[in-house]
Amino acid sequence: MENDSQRRIYMDYSAGKPVDPRVTDAMLPFFNSSFGNPSSVHTLGQEAKQALQNSREVVAKLINSETPEAIVFTSGATESNNLAIRGTAGRNKSRGNKILTSSVEHMSVVNPCKLMIRNGFQVIFLPVDKFGVLDLEKLEAELDDQTTIVSIVYANPEIGTIEPIKEISKIVHTKKAFLHVDATAACGQVPIDVQTENIDLLTMSSNDIYGPKGVGALYVKPGTTIEPVNQGGGQERGLRSGTENIPGIVGFAKAAEIAKNEMANESQRLTLLRNNLIKGLIEPIPYSYLNGHPTQRLPNNVSVRYSFIEGESILLSLDIMGVFASSGSACAAKTLQPSHVLLALGLQPEDAHGSLMATLGRENTQEDVDKITSIMPDIVKRLRDMSPLTPKELK
Amino acid sequence: MENDSQRRIYMDYSAGKPVDPRVTDAMLPFFNSSFGNPSSVHTLGQEAKQALQNSREVVAKLINSETPEAIVFTSGATESNNLAIRGTAGRNKSRGNKILTSSVEHMSVVNPCKLMIRNGFQVIFLPVDKFGVLDLEKLEAELDDQTTIVSIVYANPEIGTIEPIKEISKIVHTKKAFLHVDATAACGQVPIDVQTENIDLLTMSSNDIYGPKGVGALYVKPGTTIEPVNQGGGQERGLRSGTENIPGIVGFAKAAEIAKNEMANESQRLTLLRNNLIKGLIEPIPYSYLNGHPTQRLPNNVSVRYSFIEGESILLSLDIMGVFASSGSACAAKTLQPSHVLLALGLQPEDAHGSLMATLGRENTQEDVDKITSIMPDIVKRLRDMSPLTPKELK
Repeated sequence: MENDSQRRIYMDYSAGKPVDPRVTDAMLPFFNSSFGNPSSVHTLGQEAKQALQNSREVVAKLINSETPEAIVFTSGATESNNLAIRGTAGRNKSRGNKILTSSVEHMSVVNPCKLMIRNGFQVIFLPVDKFGVLDLEKLEAELDDQTTIVSIVYANPEIGTIEPIKEISKIVHTKKAFLHVDATAACGQVPIDVQTENIDLLTMSSNDIYGPKGVGALYVKPGTTIEPVNQGGGQERGLRSGTENIPGIVGFAKAAEIAKNEMANESQRLTLLRNNLIKGLIEPIPYSYLNGHPTQRLPNNVSVRYSFIEGESILLSLDIMGVFASSGSACAAKTLQPSHVLLALGLQPEDAHGSLMATLGRENTQEDVDKITSIMPDIVKRLRDMSPLTPKELK
Repeated sequence: MENDSQRRIYMDYSAGKPVDPRVTDAMLPFFNSSFGNPSSVHTLGQEAKQALQNSREVVAKLINSETPEAIVFTSGATESNNLAIRGTAGRNKSRGNKILTSSVEHMSVVNPCKLMIRNGFQVIFLPVDKFGVLDLEKLEAELDDQTTIVSIVYANPEIGTIEPIKEISKIVHTKKAFLHVDATAACGQVPIDVQTENIDLLTMSSNDIYGPKGVGALYVKPGTTIEPVNQGGGQERGLRSGTENIPGIVGFAKAAEIAKNEMANESQRLTLLRNNLIKGLIEPIPYSYLNGHPTQRLPNNVSVRYSFIEGESILLSLDIMGVFASSGSACAAKTLQPSHVLLALGLQPEDAHGSLMATLGRENTQEDVDKITSIMPDIVKRLRDMSPLTPKELK
C-alpha cells in the first residue's frame, strides 16, 4: 500500500479538537501572571474574578442566555450532564421520580440515568426512528406529572442527527418537567437559542468548540430547581464547588466568541465537504449506507457503514495511510460492544460493527475529502475479500 | 501612606499559584498538535494515551505509589475529596455507616461529609488541640467496626499544622477502616510516601504544586473498595468519567517532577523565610499571636492574629501597599463567618476575625519579608486606633 501524501488527515474532530491558537494566546496570561483566585480579596484575586465574569458573559451570548449568571462552569460535558440530570431529579424528587431520555444519548447521560434507577427513580429510554429522531408520540405518552426532567441530546455526535428540540420543548412544557439538552456536539456548529427554544438546562463542552479540554458549562435557566452533585467551597452559586479554572474558562470563552463569529461561514463550508464525503464514501461502493438523518444532521458528521466488514479494520487501514477517523464514540471505544446508538436505529449488531465515522473540522479541505474517497473503495474491497461474511459475488 | 516599591508582593500562594513556565512549555504541544483523545484507536489517540500513561507514572513517583494505576486523575482537589469520601463510604455501606474526620478540614471534605449525614451516615468531627493537632485518643475512642473511612488533612492550608499521619494511620488500621488524607496543601512541600505512611486514599491538586488549575488526582491504594461519583464513559478505570484533560494532566505531571527534584531545597529556603516572617509579624506588635503549630507546620505557612482588629482591614491596607495576603481560606472567603478552623482551635469569634494568613512561594524573598514586617506595626497601630475594641492604653 503506498502512502501518497506525508500529510496526516484528521477526521476525528468529534473525539478531540486542537485548541485554536487564538484561544491559547488568550489563556497564557492567566497561567503565569494573572493567576489569582477569584475568591481572594486582593487585587490579583479581583482580576481573576473580573476575568471569570467576562468569560461568563461571552459564553452566555453564544446560546443567548437571559443572564450570564445562568452559566455554571464545570470540568466538562460529563460533569455538566451528571449535574443536570442528578441535580434536577434529586432536587425535585418530592414532585416525582420519573426521568425521560432517549435511546441515543451519550454515556454521560445514560450512566447517570442508570444510577438514578439504582436510587429508586424510574427512567424511560424513549425510542427513535431509523434516522435517530426521537419518537415524539412516545414522549407525549410517557410524559406525566411525575416527570421532573427530560434529557435529550441536541445532536448526536456519532450519527449526526439533530433532534427537533423546539417541538420537544413544547411537549415537555405541557407538564411541569424541566428540559435538559446535551448540546456537546451541536454547540458551535448550529445556532442555539435557549430562550426561543425554551431550554431549561444545556450542556456545553469547551474542547468541542476548539477550546481547552477539562472545561465545560451547564446553562441553568433562572427558576430551574437544582442541587449540586459535588460538595465543597460553594463556587458557581453553590452548584459547582472547586477553585475556578480561570485559564481554562478564559479559553472556553475565547472559543465561544470565535464560534459565534465564524459559525455561519464554517458550518456552510463543512456542510459542503460533508455532502461530498458522504457521496464519495457511498456511491462507488455496493452495500454501503449512511447512518443518521440525510439532511437534519450536524454539518461536520459523516457516519457510514459497510456490510460484511469491521469498522475497526477500516480504521487501521486508514491509519496506515495517515487518515485518522473513528468507528463510533471514542468514549465508548474501550468496550467491544456494538454502539447502543446504532442499535437504537434498528441495526443488527453485525451491521453496526461495520460503521465508519468521519467528523470534519476547521483544518479539513476538499483535498482531504478527495483523498479518503479515493482510497476507500480499495480498502473495503480488500477487507471484504478477507471476510468470511462477504457473499461470493462480491469477491 | 507611601508605596516604597512598585513591585507587587504576592503572599497568597495557598489561594493560587502561578504555573511554572516549564510546565506551560510541557503543556503547549498538547493543545495544538498532539490533541488526540486517548480512547481513539488511531495514531493521534495513541500518542495521547502514551502521554497519559507517562504522566500517571510521574505523579505516582511523587508520593511513592505502588503502581501508576493507583493514580486517578480528576478536575481538582474538590472532586478528589468528594470521590474519596462519598465513593468509599458509599461502596462500603454494607459494612458500616460511620465516617470520622477532623474539625479542621477544608470545605470540600466538610460538605461531602454533611451530605453523607443527610444520606443516613453518621459523621464524627473529631476535635483538635489548640495547635490544630488531631486528638488521637478521641480518634481511637470513636473508631469502631462500623467505621469505613477516616478523612484527615495532611496539613491544614490555613494554619499550616501538619497532622501526625503515621500515627493516625496506625490507629485507623487497627480496624477495617480506610484512611483518606487530603494532601492538597502538603503535597510538594513535604515528602509524602503512601507506602511507608500506609495511606489508602490521597488527594492531590495540580495548581498547589505550580501546575495548571482544573486538574488533580486521587491516589487509590490497590485493594481499596470505592465507587465513582460522576457517571459516564468509564475513563480512569471507571472511577472518573469524562474525556481526559491531557494538556492539564501533562502539566500536572511536569509540576510533580519539578516538585520532586526541588522540594528539599525549596522547603528549606521557605522555612527560613517563614520563621523570619512569623518573628517579624509578632515580636514588635503587642497582643499578636501565631495560629497553628510552632514547628510542625508547612514550610510556607504564616498565620497570625491581632487582637481588637479585623483581618479584612489588614488585607485592604496591605493591598494598597501592593502586598497580597489573605485572612483565611479563599474557598470560604465568600462567607463572613469566622473560619471554622480557627474556632476549632478554641479561639473566640472576635479573635478569629483578626487573623492574617501569608502563604509563601517560589518568588518570595527575604526582601519581601522585610517589606511586610516593616509596614505591619503601623498598619496594626492605625487600625487599632480606629477600633472601638482597643483598650485605651494601646491607643
